[in-house]
Amino acid sequence: MREVAVIGCGMTKFGELWDKSLRDLFVEAAIKAIDDAGVDHIDSMYVGCMSSGLFVGQEHLGALLADYLGVSGIPSARIESACASGGMALRQGFIEVASGMSDIVLVGGVEKMTDCHDVTYALATAADQEYEAYFGVTFPGLYALIARAHMERYGTTREQLAHVAVKNHRNGALNPNAQFRREITVEDVINATKVADPLTLLDCSPVSDGAACVILCPLELAKKYQDIPIKILASGAATDTIALHQREDITTLKAVKLSAERAFKQAGLKPEDIDVAEVHDCFTIAEICIIEDIGFVEKGKGGEYTAKGYTALDGKIPINPSGGLKSKGHPVGATGVAQAVEIVEQLRGNAGKRQVKNARIGLTQNMGGSGASSVVHIFSVV
Amino acid sequence: MREVAVIGCGMTKFGELWDKSLRDLFVEAAIKAIDDAGVDHIDSMYVGCMSSGLFVGQEHLGALLADYLGVSGIPSARIESACASGGMALRQGFIEVASGMSDIVLVGGVEKMTDCHDVTYALATAADQEYEAYFGVTFPGLYALIARAHMERYGTTREQLAHVAVKNHRNGALNPNAQFRREITVEDVINATKVADPLTLLDCSPVSDGAACVILCPLELAKKYQDIPIKILASGAATDTIALHQREDITTLKAVKLSAERAFKQAGLKPEDIDVAEVHDCFTIAEICIIEDIGFVEKGKGGEYTAKGYTALDGKIPINPSGGLKSKGHPVGATGVAQAVEIVEQLRGNAGKRQVKNARIGLTQNMGGSGASSVVHIFSVV
Repeated sequence: MREVAVIGCGMTKFGELWDKSLRDLFVEAAIKAIDDAGVDHIDSMYVGCMSSGLFVGQEHLGALLADYLGVSGIPSARIESACASGGMALRQGFIEVASGMSDIVLVGGVEKMTDCHDVTYALATAADQEYEAYFGVTFPGLYALIARAHMERYGTTREQLAHVAVKNHRNGALNPNAQFRREITVEDVINATKVADPLTLLDCSPVSDGAACVILCPLELAKKYQDIPIKILASGAATDTIALHQREDITTLKAVKLSAERAFKQAGLKPEDIDVAEVHDCFTIAEICIIEDIGFVEKGKGGEYTAKGYTALDGKIPINPSGGLKSKGHPVGATGVAQAVEIVEQLRGNAGKRQVKNARIGLTQNMGGSGASSVVHIFSVV
Repeated sequence: MREVAVIGCGMTKFGELWDKSLRDLFVEAAIKAIDDAGVDHIDSMYVGCMSSGLFVGQEHLGALLADYLGVSGIPSARIESACASGGMALRQGFIEVASGMSDIVLVGGVEKMTDCHDVTYALATAADQEYEAYFGVTFPGLYALIARAHMERYGTTREQLAHVAVKNHRNGALNPNAQFRREITVEDVINATKVADPLTLLDCSPVSDGAACVILCPLELAKKYQDIPIKILASGAATDTIALHQREDITTLKAVKLSAERAFKQAGLKPEDIDVAEVHDCFTIAEICIIEDIGFVEKGKGGEYTAKGYTALDGKIPINPSGGLKSKGHPVGATGVAQAVEIVEQLRGNAGKRQVKNARIGLTQNMGGSGASSVVHIFSVV
């Protein structure tokens, strides 16, 4: 396998972008990434998108977006793994460059969610329709079950959950592309509208529009285009049962564990080698489980460590310096690629006020459904 | 890049399968392919599916179907390129094995279409929503435009179009998995209900349920599992403008030309080296354009050659021995993989009454939308 580098990245602002269509968003992010890389052509393209069919009545995004980007002719396909679509698209781009099939590959993620008629229904199609969604459960409900079980089993508190959102809003306030650029307090989170007990509105990531893109090429060609290429050391992916009720232990996200183990093995690294990480905080409890299941903190201690500032921008392992899904926003198919954009910016030292000091090795973890899909990438400066 | 072989294949019957759900269909095809290959594990999985979100309210098929197949834990993603989803999924599996990332990869395609409430709307999401579908045009209409232009430019006749359907029904009558196992006449086609002038109901492929799977592995491991492994010599993919009105010439499917040229170049072969092919005859006019644009016949002569029997089972280049989309059925996400299943059976010499004599090298061509995506694979006996 050839070594692979990221040579360009770009993203739109995330938020309620009512004056921009899905194709506008994608092209904006793609042109930023192409300009950043300085490439004059693209050999192949992947688009991560969860549910454009339900959100905006448009499938066939591979061809559509290649066309609107002005690169019609190249191979282009859409990748879907629910909210892990972006991360899985990145994985396909990584594999294609590693294989030798293509040199310059554009990987994008996009979702247009805010002016659609039934977002909750569309999102629930990432759960098991026949055994979960059919009975009316939605994702806040599923993650609330995980939160209750985690509180029961490990003594995680309501306040500790809130600390995840407080920390991510603090980071997001420093990110010009974030949907919510304001700090919040633990009290704000606890006193917000209840969504699914114990989760309130401020435990939940928002509904967003946005797109993000990266350009990949073989590491050996990277210096031709980019002074600071970022190497992709590993790509690990895994699945779990789609329905929560079929898992032995709902407080452990098995796909997260497996995907992280596979990535660490491929990279020859351990969790303690990571300087900065973007993880899938679709709900506050998700970030707590994920930092435990990746191995950044001991199982059951995620809430405690978060409350202590261990995962803050100046903590031992800064998690979600971008603001995460909670504050930066969560256009579902774009999220996995936007995580990579943030890690590339961090490793280049271009992250402005939210820059993590001495960041040399970074990790992204992107998740689908209630953890049925997870994909982990590890990046490093060359 | 490692050389890649198909070591197992399986498919369901195609048709109106009201007693089987999407997951039932996929698992049935996957187990047949796994049994055929004799593998005891799978390393990774791809699922081609166009629009399960709109058809059955279920996205996240990668995780769902790995789960229902009993292989939860492995990496698994869905690939979507409209009706070329199956072929693009095969391409991803091919690239992953070629890269060295995984050894045993299951590639499946599936679609459940017959008991859904608005199939025409869902299919139209493969066209440009903002400039085509919005104005009410559907795929029969788009292909009717192509047919009229082809008739005008090349003198293709109404009868020649009908010969495509007649030939494919003749082949499909010999295929136990085909949706329509009955022969039809040129008069039947011409006198059938008009759908979009000049196309009648019998020029159009049907709405179908079904699934198909293949198992891939590195060629060097193939003999361990399979006495007659089939090598994948090449994978070529391409895109074109999504909207028909943006093309210089609507009688030429540029993505088909490009994808075929790329595949022939990779394989070091020419059209005349192919012994048998499965192509995307979603409408009769599509097969005529495709056999021209791949280079099996001179441009503009597709109708004439078809009427002369050149593409019949005993012709110079047998096209769609399975019955094609027209007679075998067209569960859109499954089609590209089912084409590969047919070619593997043909090259193994297992195709029964529809066996093409001395078939050593075969080709599949799978298409999305009105030709905005096309993917071509070339296979050979080892």
